[in-house]
Amino acid sequence: MTQTLHPSRVSETQRRVEDDLVDRVVSSFDNCDNPRLKQIMQSLTVHLHNFIRDVRLTEEEWNYAIDFLTKVGHITDDKRQEFVLLSDTLGASMQTIAVNNEAYKDATEATVFGPFFVDDAPHVELGGDISFGAKGQPAWIEGTVTDTDGNPVPNARIEVWECDEDGFYDVQYGDDRTSARAHLYTNERGEYRFWGLTPVPYPIPHDGPVGQMLAAVGRSPVRAAHLHFMVTAENLRTLVTHIFVEDDPQLEIGDSVFGVKDSLIKRFEEQPVGTPTPNGRDLSDQAWTKTRFDIVLAPAHPLSEEN
Amino acid sequence: MTQTLHPSRVSETQRRVEDDLVDRVVSSFDNCDNPRLKQIMQSLTVHLHNFIRDVRLTEEEWNYAIDFLTKVGHITDDKRQEFVLLSDTLGASMQTIAVNNEAYKDATEATVFGPFFVDDAPHVELGGDISFGAKGQPAWIEGTVTDTDGNPVPNARIEVWECDEDGFYDVQYGDDRTSARAHLYTNERGEYRFWGLTPVPYPIPHDGPVGQMLAAVGRSPVRAAHLHFMVTAENLRTLVTHIFVEDDPQLEIGDSVFGVKDSLIKRFEEQPVGTPTPNGRDLSDQAWTKTRFDIVLAPAHPLSEEN
Repeated sequence: MTQTLHPSRVSETQRRVEDDLVDRVVSSFDNCDNPRLKQIMQSLTVHLHNFIRDVRLTEEEWNYAIDFLTKVGHITDDKRQEFVLLSDTLGASMQTIAVNNEAYKDATEATVFGPFFVDDAPHVELGGDISFGAKGQPAWIEGTVTDTDGNPVPNARIEVWECDEDGFYDVQYGDDRTSARAHLYTNERGEYRFWGLTPVPYPIPHDGPVGQMLAAVGRSPVRAAHLHFMVTAENLRTLVTHIFVEDDPQLEIGDSVFGVKDSLIKRFEEQPVGTPTPNGRDLSDQAWTKTRFDIVLAPAHPLSEEN
Repeated sequence: MTQTLHPSRVSETQRRVEDDLVDRVVSSFDNCDNPRLKQIMQSLTVHLHNFIRDVRLTEEEWNYAIDFLTKVGHITDDKRQEFVLLSDTLGASMQTIAVNNEAYKDATEATVFGPFFVDDAPHVELGGDISFGAKGQPAWIEGTVTDTDGNPVPNARIEVWECDEDGFYDVQYGDDRTSARAHLYTNERGEYRFWGLTPVPYPIPHDGPVGQMLAAVGRSPVRAAHLHFMVTAENLRTLVTHIFVEDDPQLEIGDSVFGVKDSLIKRFEEQPVGTPTPNGRDLSDQAWTKTRFDIVLAPAHPLSEEN
């Protein structure tokens, strides 16, 4: 992939004019007394100018970009974060996750956090039901939490959240309901298990400028079906991830925020009506699914541990 | 300047993970049926991801960026365009101008348009006063408009606008006044002349997030003193530019939007009280200045003309 492309029709003189401008903007940050902020602003300047120069951005396109960002700003409020959607759909959120969660031995891979996490979700006991009335096909999820040496992690806190069968999270209903989210703790053998819902695909909010962008470039706004996890335990790296559903057609079409990793795709095994449930729950005439997700947490400070 | 910097502590595996994500996002635009939009989105993706990877952006910094952009969006309204200020202060506006106004022979250089142009500014005759009551030291500005072969350009339309001695444009007062702006036409010899005000430095609006950014990095929000020009004539490239004032201390400190070019710095010669004016205007007890700005317009389509 060409990282920087200066079309040959740009003369040496012109190139010098453009280089000189980049240098002046970069130098304007020289007096910043916060070295990290200075580094970020100077790098941003170089990459932003490279983009403008590579595509030879027209003044009309610049105006369009200003207008687009203005619309993104104006649709954003306490409940709608269009800048996050923009970052998500450009893969910038996922790249930030990647940069901050470097592969470490067999530690479980991270993915995007998303906008639908809520603090203080209710607690459920092992084997409890996190759906709290949300509609959908019941799913039994079980697994273990271990460290990268294979030791079980007791008392790890597991937050789980997902949408209902209509593709909506509880917070999207605007009626203060709490459903399809909870937290639970692993037992002394590092095990966890709970009832949730078989995940379904749903579109990110696409009635705004980001949705218009996706439509203009021929991309689907739909996220592959998934169930969110956040796992925290002492001295271990916090893991924010999802599990995805094998054979979900959206995996082929493409997850709209690039969150899928092969290692996170799990088979949700269909259980016909009447199949006995693992903990004796009576599902009467409902079919259900079950899956397993064994979680491996990296150390909180892998570099210092290696030294 | 390092364009792309992958710290050596990033492992090969990690680099592959990050590269693979960039490739997936780039490919997501493959089906875009507008080739220009596809090019822009794919280039934007590459440069945005390079930025995140180069600085190893933390999740906290990503959150800060989302919050910053949200604030930029929320302060922006019909009268305040913080995204333009952001683009200006990162030199992105000036780079777009540079890309679209390539050097051509001795054609006058372009600079930023700014947010204070108004359509339908009043007409003045040659030698007329564009100040319309705006406060400031009178300045006599004269010059010619020619093409790059030295031919005079008669009937070129010249739009001029500037701030008053307090650093405010008429539109910033919010009282419908029109002052310190006008349009005029060159005569048959390509000459123009008018009375304006000696330009003074002024800060861009800096009570918002962009002003906070400038303060955090130790940069001045002040623009070097300038007078805006926009010159249009048939078959010639429209010129948007300024003239700057020699010896303005802000030239040394740095123009906050990177608009200065050496060729646009002009001497405004001080004329002591009582010096006769070029067209007999009575300035009684006021000192005044005079300057000359000879404008050269490139052809509208230089490439086709050369072929």
